Amino acid sequence: MKVPIILVNYKVYETSYGKRGLEMAKIVEKVALETSTEIIVAVPATMITRVAEMVSIPVYAQHVDGVPEGAHTGAITPELIKDAGARGSLLNHSEKRMRMDEMDDALKRMRKLGLESVVCVDRYELVAPMALLKPTAVLVEPPELIGSGISVSKARPEVITSAVDEIRKVEGVYLVAGAGITSGEDVYVAMKLGSDGVGAASAIMKAKEPQKVLLEFVNGAIRALEERGGR
Amino acid sequence: MKVPIILVNYKVYETSYGKRGLEMAKIVEKVALETSTEIIVAVPATMITRVAEMVSIPVYAQHVDGVPEGAHTGAITPELIKDAGARGSLLNHSEKRMRMDEMDDALKRMRKLGLESVVCVDRYELVAPMALLKPTAVLVEPPELIGSGISVSKARPEVITSAVDEIRKVEGVYLVAGAGITSGEDVYVAMKLGSDGVGAASAIMKAKEPQKVLLEFVNGAIRALEERGGR
Amino acid sequence: MKVPIILVNYKVYETSYGKRGLEMAKIVEKVALETSTEIIVAVPATMITRVAEMVSIPVYAQHVDGVPEGAHTGAITPELIKDAGARGSLLNHSEKRMRMDEMDDALKRMRKLGLESVVCVDRYELVAPMALLKPTAVLVEPPELIGSGISVSKARPEVITSAVDEIRKVEGVYLVAGAGITSGEDVYVAMKLGSDGVGAASAIMKAKEPQKVLLEFVNGAIRALEERGGR
Amino acid sequence: MKVPIILVNYKVYETSYGKRGLEMAKIVEKVALETSTEIIVAVPATMITRVAEMVSIPVYAQHVDGVPEGAHTGAITPELIKDAGARGSLLNHSEKRMRMDEMDDALKRMRKLGLESVVCVDRYELVAPMALLKPTAVLVEPPELIGSGISVSKARPEVITSAVDEIRKVEGVYLVAGAGITSGEDVYVAMKLGSDGVGAASAIMKAKEPQKVLLEFVNGAIRALEERGGR
Repeated sequence: MKVPIILVNYKVYETSYGKRGLEMAKIVEKVALETSTEIIVAVPATMITRVAEMVSIPVYAQHVDGVPEGAHTGAITPELIKDAGARGSLLNHSEKRMRMDEMDDALKRMRKLGLESVVCVDRYELVAPMALLKPTAVLVEPPELIGSGISVSKARPEVITSAVDEIRKVEGVYLVAGAGITSGEDVYVAMKLGSDGVGAASAIMKAKEPQKVLLEFVNGAIRALEERGGR
Repeated sequence: MKVPIILVNYKVYETSYGKRGLEMAKIVEKVALETSTEIIVAVPATMITRVAEMVSIPVYAQHVDGVPEGAHTGAITPELIKDAGARGSLLNHSEKRMRMDEMDDALKRMRKLGLESVVCVDRYELVAPMALLKPTAVLVEPPELIGSGISVSKARPEVITSAVDEIRKVEGVYLVAGAGITSGEDVYVAMKLGSDGVGAASAIMKAKEPQKVLLEFVNGAIRALEERGGR
Repeated sequence: MKVPIILVNYKVYETSYGKRGLEMAKIVEKVALETSTEIIVAVPATMITRVAEMVSIPVYAQHVDGVPEGAHTGAITPELIKDAGARGSLLNHSEKRMRMDEMDDALKRMRKLGLESVVCVDRYELVAPMALLKPTAVLVEPPELIGSGISVSKARPEVITSAVDEIRKVEGVYLVAGAGITSGEDVYVAMKLGSDGVGAASAIMKAKEPQKVLLEFVNGAIRALEERGGR
Repeated sequence: MKVPIILVNYKVYETSYGKRGLEMAKIVEKVALETSTEIIVAVPATMITRVAEMVSIPVYAQHVDGVPEGAHTGAITPELIKDAGARGSLLNHSEKRMRMDEMDDALKRMRKLGLESVVCVDRYELVAPMALLKPTAVLVEPPELIGSGISVSKARPEVITSAVDEIRKVEGVYLVAGAGITSGEDVYVAMKLGSDGVGAASAIMKAKEPQKVLLEFVNGAIRALEERGGR
């Protein structure tokens, strides 16, 4: 995982699968290549192989189960997504919550398999507890802002700053901010406040010009990094 | 769906994905072609496209969610599995139970999309209630026998006969029997008792010679059908 | 259970427990006695004994689990609620959905214990499937109207008439209508459309004069019954 | 909460409710009074009031939900258990797992209400993450030993010592050990290894002479404390 972390969650929109899902991956890849930035797409389990075979950007699953191999009909295990071509996965998204023990099970196996992991939480108070399970990153997203078009950067900057304070208590885990991120300015602010990147979904997946929005995102991220003296 | 219904549930074994998962599909296809029988494979969501592109036999998902398209991170919707190349899906497996309202939501959308559906239940008392939701088939499986090697045909034949009585109360829904099916004799008995076919998992997926076991299954099914005056 | 069925779901409001919860039970009992009508209160598990000891009206639990006696920390079993003084329970409320197999487990034990049962569903299509499990009654409630103040009687009368058609396919199960029931007229219409009674929650629990609202409910029910030639 | 912490989880055995449940509470109270030790009983929600009214020992619920007051049919909220007479509650028992966000919601409200809380975990790796949510205590219990009669003290002492190391990373949270605790020696060892007490269920609830077993437990605890220079 590289900073700035920009993660596009496909969710399950009309643009998330089939031909349109593949076109979206191409668009994301184009922006990533043009800006020399890593942009992650988290796609439906059924799309992992097709997307991973077509583009060079990292492909994530949207969820993995903690169960081991065996009699677990319908489970999406770490082994399955790795085999399909994923580099990692989201876990515990507010639309797919997991229990803590299941998450620890999944994360242990993901580490063994060399898979990256982004654990979502809905409040800064859960950042440090989740970080103790050693995922690659924690993504903090106030659920009431998800899909709202009102960004966490503007509406609740204190969530990001508190989350940044919390993540510093545990070494080696990135902090990503999300919910309502729709403009380059939102990305800039989120990163100026100390986050290592952003997650977004509808702002890209439902955009008329996703390429343009994404380019703004990357530029906002780069500007913040430069001002922070990074990159 | 054609009688005899023979459904191989891949679950999530070592043989269920990657190269070995594809080889298994080839083996199943070979038996299907040689015996002019339809054999269904229910594969992990990540495998649907790869299996469907390689073999001509019907490919099912192991689970679908009832949620509509939209902000549902991690959901496997009917639209997703159809796009991936599936012809249908299992629902409500004992290892992935669903709520009744979610099942009705999923089944309504599956019918619109032309997808087949096999709803699993753990007791004959649930056969008629589930059949009223109009899936393609109901699969009755006493969970204590799943993976046991002791077949429902031998250990609990009354489950099958009661289930057959129940399914007749609703028109146009197939009845499949499962749990512990390991031999051609098990398949023969299950179908002589009135079921339209069988579901199996470990007996095939963990077999040293899956082709041989599957061939026995088909022969047992054909023998039962002939004696019943069908086919 | 007696027709008209009038069921007051306490839920977990400020008025649902402690002194206020007991006062509410007294008010409901008063209306029941004055009108010689049976009115059921479904109270939190922690309140069952206190309410049942104080009033003569039937007391229900709001939920029971399907698990048997044993190592099931936190479960509310049929045995527990019977011991506490309950005459029955709601099951599968939209705010506490259950799986079909768990419901069948719970209902079988409830029948043995002589407990009444009201299974909630969110659509008429689930009325017959649930009725096949032989609860005392099925309560149909479109979830989008729950707590809305817009009654199913007015906004979606076809849900009630369709549910009445469905319940007739199974013998000996009552049909109750709910969601947004706030006036005597709502009760009257729901019963004229063929239901055996109504369920309500916020209209009573949050009312300034619950006694007055409840009295209207009962009068609406009696008027409908008289016109239907019942009672 | 006082050290040694001895917590008797009633679960839902035949002895857990009604007359026998009350008798058990009397027995526990007797041992508590005779030994001047605090012994907690965690009883079914339906029993809280009856037990709390009859004995002077602390009564816990076995589970609380994180939802606020309102339209939450079937929920057991912190307000409900406090009103019923509970002094605290178990949370996240292996038989009733909760999501992390729900637990944080519940714990925040419990603290405001002055309720104690014992959060269960199945592995030492979750001790620190849970402790960060500031419950009164964390109870570590390897689930494979629960009800086994083989104690964590003997079979997996390293779970206790690792858990003790973990709990020390967070100030002001007790560490309780559980699973298979059946003798005074088990309690002694668990506390010598650094835990603040033990949780037990079947060893007491299914005992022919619960009083005798419990007295042994307390004596084991006192002996460990004396050797540790505490009490």
